Amino acid sequence: MPVSPETQKTIALVVRHNTVGIEEPVRGIIAFLQVAGYRVVFESETAAHLNMPDIGAMSASEIGEVAEAAIVMGGDGTMLGIARKLAPYALPLIGINQGRLGFMTDIPIERTLPVLAEILAGKSDSEKRTLLEGRVLREGVEIASGLAVNDVVVARGAGAGMAELKVTVDGHFMYNQRSDGLIISTPTGSTAYALSAGGPLLHPSLGGVVLVPIAPHALSNRPIVLPDSCNIVVEVVSGRDVSVNFDMQTFASLAHGDQIVISRSPHHITFLHPEGWSYYDTLREKLHWNEYPSGEGKLR
Amino acid sequence: MPVSPETQKTIALVVRHNTVGIEEPVRGIIAFLQVAGYRVVFESETAAHLNMPDIGAMSASEIGEVAEAAIVMGGDGTMLGIARKLAPYALPLIGINQGRLGFMTDIPIERTLPVLAEILAGKSDSEKRTLLEGRVLREGVEIASGLAVNDVVVARGAGAGMAELKVTVDGHFMYNQRSDGLIISTPTGSTAYALSAGGPLLHPSLGGVVLVPIAPHALSNRPIVLPDSCNIVVEVVSGRDVSVNFDMQTFASLAHGDQIVISRSPHHITFLHPEGWSYYDTLREKLHWNEYPSGEGKLR
Amino acid sequence: MPVSPETQKTIALVVRHNTVGIEEPVRGIIAFLQVAGYRVVFESETAAHLNMPDIGAMSASEIGEVAEAAIVMGGDGTMLGIARKLAPYALPLIGINQGRLGFMTDIPIERTLPVLAEILAGKSDSEKRTLLEGRVLREGVEIASGLAVNDVVVARGAGAGMAELKVTVDGHFMYNQRSDGLIISTPTGSTAYALSAGGPLLHPSLGGVVLVPIAPHALSNRPIVLPDSCNIVVEVVSGRDVSVNFDMQTFASLAHGDQIVISRSPHHITFLHPEGWSYYDTLREKLHWNEYPSGEGKLR
Amino acid sequence: MPVSPETQKTIALVVRHNTVGIEEPVRGIIAFLQVAGYRVVFESETAAHLNMPDIGAMSASEIGEVAEAAIVMGGDGTMLGIARKLAPYALPLIGINQGRLGFMTDIPIERTLPVLAEILAGKSDSEKRTLLEGRVLREGVEIASGLAVNDVVVARGAGAGMAELKVTVDGHFMYNQRSDGLIISTPTGSTAYALSAGGPLLHPSLGGVVLVPIAPHALSNRPIVLPDSCNIVVEVVSGRDVSVNFDMQTFASLAHGDQIVISRSPHHITFLHPEGWSYYDTLREKLHWNEYPSGEGKLR
Repeated sequence: MPVSPETQKTIALVVRHNTVGIEEPVRGIIAFLQVAGYRVVFESETAAHLNMPDIGAMSASEIGEVAEAAIVMGGDGTMLGIARKLAPYALPLIGINQGRLGFMTDIPIERTLPVLAEILAGKSDSEKRTLLEGRVLREGVEIASGLAVNDVVVARGAGAGMAELKVTVDGHFMYNQRSDGLIISTPTGSTAYALSAGGPLLHPSLGGVVLVPIAPHALSNRPIVLPDSCNIVVEVVSGRDVSVNFDMQTFASLAHGDQIVISRSPHHITFLHPEGWSYYDTLREKLHWNEYPSGEGKLR
Repeated sequence: MPVSPETQKTIALVVRHNTVGIEEPVRGIIAFLQVAGYRVVFESETAAHLNMPDIGAMSASEIGEVAEAAIVMGGDGTMLGIARKLAPYALPLIGINQGRLGFMTDIPIERTLPVLAEILAGKSDSEKRTLLEGRVLREGVEIASGLAVNDVVVARGAGAGMAELKVTVDGHFMYNQRSDGLIISTPTGSTAYALSAGGPLLHPSLGGVVLVPIAPHALSNRPIVLPDSCNIVVEVVSGRDVSVNFDMQTFASLAHGDQIVISRSPHHITFLHPEGWSYYDTLREKLHWNEYPSGEGKLR
Repeated sequence: MPVSPETQKTIALVVRHNTVGIEEPVRGIIAFLQVAGYRVVFESETAAHLNMPDIGAMSASEIGEVAEAAIVMGGDGTMLGIARKLAPYALPLIGINQGRLGFMTDIPIERTLPVLAEILAGKSDSEKRTLLEGRVLREGVEIASGLAVNDVVVARGAGAGMAELKVTVDGHFMYNQRSDGLIISTPTGSTAYALSAGGPLLHPSLGGVVLVPIAPHALSNRPIVLPDSCNIVVEVVSGRDVSVNFDMQTFASLAHGDQIVISRSPHHITFLHPEGWSYYDTLREKLHWNEYPSGEGKLR
Repeated sequence: MPVSPETQKTIALVVRHNTVGIEEPVRGIIAFLQVAGYRVVFESETAAHLNMPDIGAMSASEIGEVAEAAIVMGGDGTMLGIARKLAPYALPLIGINQGRLGFMTDIPIERTLPVLAEILAGKSDSEKRTLLEGRVLREGVEIASGLAVNDVVVARGAGAGMAELKVTVDGHFMYNQRSDGLIISTPTGSTAYALSAGGPLLHPSLGGVVLVPIAPHALSNRPIVLPDSCNIVVEVVSGRDVSVNFDMQTFASLAHGDQIVISRSPHHITFLHPEGWSYYDTLREKLHWNEYPSGEGKLR
């Protein structure tokens, strides 16, 4: 039975570039969705690199306004890029990984169709993720801004000694810290760069952000977890070639005295997971917590 | 003007044992409070070790029911002990340190009277702290329980290899971790044992608890911060002489298969701070974040 | 050609207890060695739990005096136990793991015979490992002593606050450290408990020992690597139920004022590895350094 | 009694730039040394910024060839700069700090004269420090080289993801590590950048170097201490704007495939300390190990 375009629901597909052999599973997903009565569109960059002219293309903002959901095929990097663009809209995201489980792309490609069937039938767990927004002020004037799914990172240049950063939270002076830089991370980002720099894991439903100094001069400058309702201001006191980046994707060079004002974004991301999904299963697999089953493989 | 006993408000005093020269400042505080119209009572253990028979004594539970506030003179250990007892009651606590700033006893003894004057005049910031409660189940039957201001610690005995602990959160299996033990810490406890074991700092207003493994076998068993609404079950899988303690003050020996069920207590503690108080000021002083002012004292 | 008993060389076999299905490979190794002209004996505990009365048994000290080499089948724990006993003798050790690679048992059981053939033909790399010896002095009198392949650990009891330990190196006061305890580890032990407690890896040929505090109170009490020619004295200043252990196998309870005097043992252990063996290959496999091949599996 | 120029011994003075009020103590030291029969010369940069034309100047290499010793007034940074230049020569260095104790400048300025008197009288402890030398090879051709008192650091640029570095030790492949970079540090450098990045302390007399990854992707990429006789090759596999620096003072930009070959320098530095000097005293003061004397100031 043909569905009239007015009432037909749209699902967008975002596919990682340069993925050998991706056409076939993409075709499978499209066919599956069309049979289920959905209109399928590509995100415009995806359309440009996949040669499937029969499928329409939309920009991220069009997708945000029109689509019911977006299916993202790739790794966490692909998800990171599109999630930031779609954050202002309400549509949920479904992450399909190719080859290796991601923290955000948790559906294995070979299980795509049965899982999509379940999710479309409403058997899904939705999960909200917090984002950070940051504004860079120079003498009080905003010169740059950005949105971060993972983290806002203020860091010194490579050919330079330590940076000194003054951190103020909700108007209270916290410290002047000297280090290679400071990571302000969401729970989502706590499994990424912040973890490498010594930060703790934060559960996605925790209303918190973590400040993780990178190679801090003072050994007591430990990671600190703050409520995500906080307003955090990082001011560049000294250091050469200091810059700020958002998810390592948007950059701005900073001068001494510049302030980065960071707070929780009014937007958030919604992931759809298969019913019964558990964050701890993903952690366990990604962090190899299963490597050492009881009674064998003792390191000591 | 004499105040009738029925309407007179009561303030309790809790003083650390064996503090040389404490009588004089205690007398000063009592005089000050009496002049201000309050009835002053000692907590009964304080009464027993201070020789001031003119001042009445009350048990912790009587204080909880009768007093407007309790003033605690000592260190964080003194505060920890009484706070757990007074938690079921609503009365706020005022912490006065002797000699060295505490995380919870933040008023220097020499500033006691002016600060008390301010606080009694209503110029104070009140701050709530979360507590954890734990129940130990053996074959489903509760054999012990406890309340913790800082932390619940499950740990192996000294003459033993690793313990293996199975951790479940809100019914989801998290991991079997092998280690010397596991610290489940409130924000208040995050500056205590959990910090020594590698945990992050948690702001007191964060609705979180942190699980910090002690010397974990798997290097990826990193500290993890969970919402404090979680229900955490730690089961003893293996290990010799495993025990659980609450704030290192109440202990229970554990057998294999025992479960410790941990959740946020319905009670909380309220601290009264002088107006304008900042948690970061305390952190900075206690953790020596001020040691290295800009431009000198570079470690590198 | 029969070999006269006087000139026949002896090789000892040490086998982990309770290993299902071990008889067959043990028989294979014995047959192989006998054909090669060696007399094979069991270490006496091995003889007691394996039912092979045709094979002679010797105590560890007899093996030390008589045998050319000892083949150890099991995990690192099995090797640890026998290596400490055989350390006073010169004979080399060959470690065969069952199932899972060990740091010290690096020959997979299925490759045993070809590797033994090579080693017996002189195609082997020998590697020396340092041991520590410790003496416990109470009021100057030795009350206990021990030898450690991995580590000497001084630790508080479970139901107790921190221990305070005074550390002196070559007569120089280092520090009074307060913690759960202190690990003094050889390079061999640096992949064991010391690693879990935050210590660095030490290459086996480094002439060093590492002091790793367990959950130290002062955040700047970091692991410190000393030359293994040092004389280290750890004195118990305070703490309850403090004890010392050697490789977690020999224990002594300690009183306040007791001193543990630790130095490099005059003995050492010699491992025989297949020619071309590399310590880094073992590290890489044991620590999963291979988990993330370039270009995929990015945590961030 | 006049001393003939031929037989007069020379001592060089190196003074940090821009030190307010330094002239007076410098004059005092010069007078003291001259009275003691020494010729005093300034290192040429010192001569250029101090206005004392009556004192001769020499380049670092002239000082190296002619002087008996060099007195360095400033902080560890001043010492670092001159020590690298003087390393090819045998002369010992005496470090005087201004205001704040340094790891290498351990004589407080107010104690300069009595300590110098002792040292000149032969009552001194001399201590050798190891240096690293590094050569950068591009397609087998050396394009840069450097000497390091503290460390050789290979690091990614700020506006870039992780670098991937392939590390080979004595011809054995160690790992491909992905991180912000890798610090190869001497014992001297182990209290500097390497410590901030999570490395252990190394005693100066340990014949070791430590490899400390900066924010490594794999949590098991822990610091590793190698004998300083090792030959370490770091190859740039991927990453943008990767560079190498020596003591954060000499830099070279790197391309993919470049190799940095690092080994112990044939040169070393000799420090002269007052007799009875202890490295642990310096550590204790610099790392605030004395902050928490027994019985008070408990964090927990």
